[in-house]
Amino acid sequence: MDSTKRVYLFTEDAEPIAAAVEAGGKELKDLLGGKGSNLMLMTNAGIPVPSGFTITTNTCIDFLDNDAQMPAGLDTEVAAAVAALEAQTDKKFGDVDNPLLLSVRSGAKFSMPGMMDTVLNLGLNDEVVVGLAKLANDERFAYDAYRRFIMMFGDVVKGAERELFEECFAEVKEEEGVSEDTEVSAEGLKKVVELEKKVYQDAVGEPFPTEPYEQLMQSIDAVFSSWGNDRAIAYRTINRIDHDLGTAVNVQTMVFGNLGDDSGTGVAFTRDPATGAKELYGEFLFNAQGEDVVAGTRTPLPISDLYESMPEVYDQFVAICDKLEAFYRNMEDVEFTIEQGKLWMLQTRDGKRTAQAAITIACALVDEGLRTEEEAVMLVEPDQLDQLLHAQFDAAAKPEAVANGVDASPGAASGKVVFSSAHAVEAAEAGEKVLLVRHETSPEDIRGMAAAQGILTSTGGKTSHAAVVGRQMGKPCVVGCGDVSIDYAGSKCSIGDLDICEGDWVSIDGSTGEVMLGEVETAPSDIIQVLTGDKAPEDAPLYGLFAKLMGWADDVRALGVLTNADTPEDAQMAVKLGAKGIGLTRTEHMFFGEDRLLNFQKMIVAEDEEQRQVAADALLPYQREDFYGILKAMDGFPVIIRLLDPPLHEFLPKDEAGQQQIADETGRTLEDIQEMVVRLHELNPMLGHRGCRLGITWPLVPAMQARAIFEAACALKKEGLNPIPEVMIPLVGTKGETSILTKIILDQAEAVMAEQGVEVEFKVGTMIEVPRAALVADQIAEFAQFFSFGTNDLTQMGFGFSRDDAEGKFIPAYIEQRVFEANPFQVLDEEGMGQLVAMACEKGRAARPDIELGICGEHGGDPTSVDFCHRVGLDYVSCSPLRVPIARLAAAQAQVKTPR
Amino acid sequence: MDSTKRVYLFTEDAEPIAAAVEAGGKELKDLLGGKGSNLMLMTNAGIPVPSGFTITTNTCIDFLDNDAQMPAGLDTEVAAAVAALEAQTDKKFGDVDNPLLLSVRSGAKFSMPGMMDTVLNLGLNDEVVVGLAKLANDERFAYDAYRRFIMMFGDVVKGAERELFEECFAEVKEEEGVSEDTEVSAEGLKKVVELEKKVYQDAVGEPFPTEPYEQLMQSIDAVFSSWGNDRAIAYRTINRIDHDLGTAVNVQTMVFGNLGDDSGTGVAFTRDPATGAKELYGEFLFNAQGEDVVAGTRTPLPISDLYESMPEVYDQFVAICDKLEAFYRNMEDVEFTIEQGKLWMLQTRDGKRTAQAAITIACALVDEGLRTEEEAVMLVEPDQLDQLLHAQFDAAAKPEAVANGVDASPGAASGKVVFSSAHAVEAAEAGEKVLLVRHETSPEDIRGMAAAQGILTSTGGKTSHAAVVGRQMGKPCVVGCGDVSIDYAGSKCSIGDLDICEGDWVSIDGSTGEVMLGEVETAPSDIIQVLTGDKAPEDAPLYGLFAKLMGWADDVRALGVLTNADTPEDAQMAVKLGAKGIGLTRTEHMFFGEDRLLNFQKMIVAEDEEQRQVAADALLPYQREDFYGILKAMDGFPVIIRLLDPPLHEFLPKDEAGQQQIADETGRTLEDIQEMVVRLHELNPMLGHRGCRLGITWPLVPAMQARAIFEAACALKKEGLNPIPEVMIPLVGTKGETSILTKIILDQAEAVMAEQGVEVEFKVGTMIEVPRAALVADQIAEFAQFFSFGTNDLTQMGFGFSRDDAEGKFIPAYIEQRVFEANPFQVLDEEGMGQLVAMACEKGRAARPDIELGICGEHGGDPTSVDFCHRVGLDYVSCSPLRVPIARLAAAQAQVKTPR
Repeated sequence: MDSTKRVYLFTEDAEPIAAAVEAGGKELKDLLGGKGSNLMLMTNAGIPVPSGFTITTNTCIDFLDNDAQMPAGLDTEVAAAVAALEAQTDKKFGDVDNPLLLSVRSGAKFSMPGMMDTVLNLGLNDEVVVGLAKLANDERFAYDAYRRFIMMFGDVVKGAERELFEECFAEVKEEEGVSEDTEVSAEGLKKVVELEKKVYQDAVGEPFPTEPYEQLMQSIDAVFSSWGNDRAIAYRTINRIDHDLGTAVNVQTMVFGNLGDDSGTGVAFTRDPATGAKELYGEFLFNAQGEDVVAGTRTPLPISDLYESMPEVYDQFVAICDKLEAFYRNMEDVEFTIEQGKLWMLQTRDGKRTAQAAITIACALVDEGLRTEEEAVMLVEPDQLDQLLHAQFDAAAKPEAVANGVDASPGAASGKVVFSSAHAVEAAEAGEKVLLVRHETSPEDIRGMAAAQGILTSTGGKTSHAAVVGRQMGKPCVVGCGDVSIDYAGSKCSIGDLDICEGDWVSIDGSTGEVMLGEVETAPSDIIQVLTGDKAPEDAPLYGLFAKLMGWADDVRALGVLTNADTPEDAQMAVKLGAKGIGLTRTEHMFFGEDRLLNFQKMIVAEDEEQRQVAADALLPYQREDFYGILKAMDGFPVIIRLLDPPLHEFLPKDEAGQQQIADETGRTLEDIQEMVVRLHELNPMLGHRGCRLGITWPLVPAMQARAIFEAACALKKEGLNPIPEVMIPLVGTKGETSILTKIILDQAEAVMAEQGVEVEFKVGTMIEVPRAALVADQIAEFAQFFSFGTNDLTQMGFGFSRDDAEGKFIPAYIEQRVFEANPFQVLDEEGMGQLVAMACEKGRAARPDIELGICGEHGGDPTSVDFCHRVGLDYVSCSPLRVPIARLAAAQAQVKTPR
Repeated sequence: MDSTKRVYLFTEDAEPIAAAVEAGGKELKDLLGGKGSNLMLMTNAGIPVPSGFTITTNTCIDFLDNDAQMPAGLDTEVAAAVAALEAQTDKKFGDVDNPLLLSVRSGAKFSMPGMMDTVLNLGLNDEVVVGLAKLANDERFAYDAYRRFIMMFGDVVKGAERELFEECFAEVKEEEGVSEDTEVSAEGLKKVVELEKKVYQDAVGEPFPTEPYEQLMQSIDAVFSSWGNDRAIAYRTINRIDHDLGTAVNVQTMVFGNLGDDSGTGVAFTRDPATGAKELYGEFLFNAQGEDVVAGTRTPLPISDLYESMPEVYDQFVAICDKLEAFYRNMEDVEFTIEQGKLWMLQTRDGKRTAQAAITIACALVDEGLRTEEEAVMLVEPDQLDQLLHAQFDAAAKPEAVANGVDASPGAASGKVVFSSAHAVEAAEAGEKVLLVRHETSPEDIRGMAAAQGILTSTGGKTSHAAVVGRQMGKPCVVGCGDVSIDYAGSKCSIGDLDICEGDWVSIDGSTGEVMLGEVETAPSDIIQVLTGDKAPEDAPLYGLFAKLMGWADDVRALGVLTNADTPEDAQMAVKLGAKGIGLTRTEHMFFGEDRLLNFQKMIVAEDEEQRQVAADALLPYQREDFYGILKAMDGFPVIIRLLDPPLHEFLPKDEAGQQQIADETGRTLEDIQEMVVRLHELNPMLGHRGCRLGITWPLVPAMQARAIFEAACALKKEGLNPIPEVMIPLVGTKGETSILTKIILDQAEAVMAEQGVEVEFKVGTMIEVPRAALVADQIAEFAQFFSFGTNDLTQMGFGFSRDDAEGKFIPAYIEQRVFEANPFQVLDEEGMGQLVAMACEKGRAARPDIELGICGEHGGDPTSVDFCHRVGLDYVSCSPLRVPIARLAAAQAQVKTPR
């Protein structure tokens, strides 16, 4: 491509830029920006696009490098391009009799907020508007175009306040005693123009420019300058977009859909964006502008109606849509205008679509030979798959929400309200559907949460206990719903004036955060019903497409996908959804069963080591049973089991009654128990005596857990199965902790295997979640056979804020003020935490080349974070069962983007 | 030095290893280990040392590399060396008539636990012992030596349990009906020997070796092997000692101080270790072994008594001491034995000494021409200076402790017990001396702490609030004294059966952790009295020496020393102690004055922004006054002022009465206040809504503080002073926070200077205390002109544990189990946190070459950490006023060790 050429025409007559098009538009986009290259490509494909030209991004850079002076010769090139447009359209820029009007738009390589927007109807002035009125035979139309132009030019090009111009219009409307814009007379519009010109003079300090070339060059100047404004710079810095790219300027001839009944405008999708069906889907209005379609004041007609009025135009439009699909190899979202019987395409872009449509279209494009399987994998947003897996309400049956909280765990749930986990369990055992409503949940609520259809909390954010466990369990969950005021003592809650008593039906939509009164019917999604055997695959056509796409993803991806699961049931569902093992089994929930909790409490409050060991021994059979179940369910797959993580005080009741009960059951005094509660109290539990720190001071706990794991594994081995336990030490920060805990585990492994007389394949490794662990990962890898990044805690400690405290209190402000582009608990902070992950990978592999590296934080199910995990070289990601397909697809896309 | 030679003799006759001695003993220590080179040097200096030889460290490495086989030819070399000792001593190894007995000791380059200890009396067997008895004319002596030898050989060389051997002795004592070892008869000792040989056979599985050469070679083998044992390896790994150094083996002829009244043994310091006075200081026993001096069963005689009994020996000893001092250029701690009138020096090492002695000796050695000033600086342990600066009890007047806690802030304090800060303030205002006793303290107690003589808490560790603030204020403080049980309601506490009521006198020694009943007189140290003008320098001779030494340190050091001070008084004292500015002024304490707190609370609970601004404006004059005072006191020195750091809930009362009071004073309802308390509640306050996070959501707070700072500075400037404020943003983790807060501060600076019409020199910078801040330090440095490492929080977040929770709960176990070598809150974790500090320095300097780098965490006053700060290239350390001299000295030593 000619590197000194600054202006590129796109007109039917212009020579096609064949080389650039052949090069796949890559170089073109750098030079002409996204919009410019698209207009160029459509024009070259023979699609009718209003003629125009693009000024290159290089010109913008030259402009900015040269103290905002237009590069020498640019004016000549622009003039020549305008002349070419004049010749091609048979109109003349600034001509009174047959005026050429232009639009000016910015167009960088990447779409970017902060850049100058659109100026339409450029070329109008007091004389030209008269000619336009004559030409269109419509004075109202011409002056309406003119007053819009002055406003856009003043606002967009000169930075005058848009409101000032709108007030002119309002003033005239009041004068004429009308309420609708369309009711203002032509005379009124002329008056608006005069008022606007005054406003312009006052705000800008100079008269409105009447010379069309001056209007054009000032607009070009404004586009170039907007590349260097603060907001644009900040956006690029945050998004790491090169400041030297520059923006292109697109100048295009105006076409009008409001020039009579043979004119019109509309939008369409080339396929159904809801279902993906291969049928044109769109709507249009006769004698209207784009704004009218958007404003919704008139009801648009279905696109098929166009066939009846203008069959040739319709056929041409269908042909163009087919051409666009063939060219972009995708479902397109197009805008078009018909000006006095002539069809113009104004824009095309890949169309947004539902998950169902995305999968249907991706598979169809492969069948149609337009896309390879690898390309098809790129056409579905991984996060969208969520829609296909969670139970949902029937939209038609859904009542209005009475309150809104945070959409923490997707899906729909209805149930009778209960305010305690105990009641949830009781009612569920009695066959009731219940919805658990709490201020917040804690590990003590696990059984209640499991028993409930869904969880609603009045506090907490997307990573609160309720949210995390809700997603983990696949339970719909709405959190932080501050409108819900709970009165535990009265067994009721209120939302505003509305009282809700225990037993009343309430529904929540975890995909939207809505809280509704009454029962709303829900059903598992088709795909889940097929997986659970409740529906035949042939009755769920989407299942087949889903399975096909996931198969392609699996063929492509380099990253393994495991699941986080604490029960055999979760694990089995995850396997059906494609997980190849368990990346995180948490063991703390296992201690909350009735007998277990008491024994655990006995262990905590024991008077001496002997009593303590007795209590620990009593827990052994329960733990063995837990591990037996989960290892059996995951036969042949690795199961990473994390040793006890939370601090001990979570296992003791805070209330005196509960403490008295333990005292009674352990034969100790209430004072003893209370003293223990005080001793275990922590000012900052997140930073407390937990994880491997417990293992150092209470070695009998990890010893008991390790013994249970290996006894379970040996038993399975004897039954001919192939258990693969991997024991994971939590919260490691030092080599010393790793070596001490590893020894405890290895001693048990050796002892149990000797007792049982069988050998079991196993590994011992660590979480990497404490920042220091990443810094000394080489030392830790001397003992650890695998690392699993616990990016939830890593983020908390690395940023120095607790998610429960931060999400409610300041993360929203941080996002609003653009300190964060995304919540770092949802999308892994690659810039900061990513450095620690990369460092730990490098040091870990240096010390132990075959070390297994994975992630088990919630980021393992976030597509952006999965992409990072792929690039940083992890072996796998692990996520909650329902996010397994998302991770599989995201992993495939990561491999396509960055092959490894 | 000959690299193939494995055995080096040290005998009066042996050729001096001149080259090695000239090389300053450096190469010698690598080859012969610490003990071996010392023995060699003493021998070469003509000092009478029992002859012997050293087997090189290289030999150990060869042995271990060669599957624990003795290198070829070693036996010949050893035999030749033994022959040389025989020739030199006129005794014969294994000879019955005139036996040569040997000791065998390990001796690595660095002293190291886990290595083989000492074997004495080697060469004895059933025949030789008879000859020894004859020669010494003392059968008891000979068999006692023999039974000790068997026990040591079995225990140390063969790893048999020492207890088994001790039981043999106990058995015979019981048989003979005696209780003291010395009462056992010679026959009894013979029996012990026989019993021990059986025990040996049982435990080791082979008979006790009777062949002296076999005894010797087995002992050498054991020393070499001990280099490779687990404990030694672990120790070296943790302390990063090269595993390839190897250990030497020292074989030395035995001498006996218990061969009659012309024999004896003793220890001595070449100068007074308490005062540093240049006079021999030691004690000895006639007819005794080293063990007898240690055991304390006989009262030793002062060394001067030796002159009366053995004037020649005494004179020789004095001459040797002078020689040693001249050779080692230090005060030495020596052990000696007189065997039948002949003086032998067994060991010399640099003597331990008090701070007073260390300073006195260091200055004297410079006066005597033995040391340069730079070397003198190395002779005082920086931490020891503490002793010279804190008020102390008169040791004689000190009663016995009734309880012991953690020695958190050194110094002595007596006062009438009070249990609330309010009472402390009241009583202090009434002229009473009070001691504040609390479970723990919080920022609300600041005024009470300031009013008290000292602080005693029943919970918390060395970095609890009470401890940190106590040290900061220079207040004696004992924390974590669990024996103290407080009954706030009853205004009393108890220690065991002892009740202590409000108003009773109690004393605490913050240097030892002792709690005593009654009043014990204290006085500020002489040095402090000179600095405060309460004593003339000429009346405090130590002051002159202290000042001289500190002057030398200042000449040497490269690292600046600032102080952490929140009040003008603290700041002034720090300047007197040598600080060149303030590295950390915390502003939160400034809000706890009566009017201030109410206004601050009004700001927090304000109903709207307007009310909030009114309350903030009301705080402005107070803050301006605070900053005026401190900037004035530090005229011409930089003052780093940290913006508000703690979370807002710390400023609201937890109790309903207090909440009601705020409600009354702000005209709001109790429910409003309680709702605010609930809303501000945090699960993990350490990781909560504080520091710059407050500044993002409550920008009026930093704006008010910045305005107060610049208004104060401008006022001083107008008075002709030179204020240098540096505004520090706490808890930064991202570039965005830094840019937003920096803008708030710069806007105020600009506005105030424009209003006041003067320019003030100032900087804006950040704490680096959040791990992420270190990772993105380059981005932060785009806005921050300085970094101050807050290593307290960095350690908490980097390790992922809160100091308050960790120090009481598991850090002791971590140190005991050697996960930590030191408490990372006391000594900066160079391996982990040091990486973050180094990374931030590097990235910060890359982005801003003139960035100012310092540390204001408590580590800034810890000598080991100061050494790291020097090496990593910081510009300064900042510490509490009384640690300023310590930091100055440590900085000087760091420069000598690692010049920059």
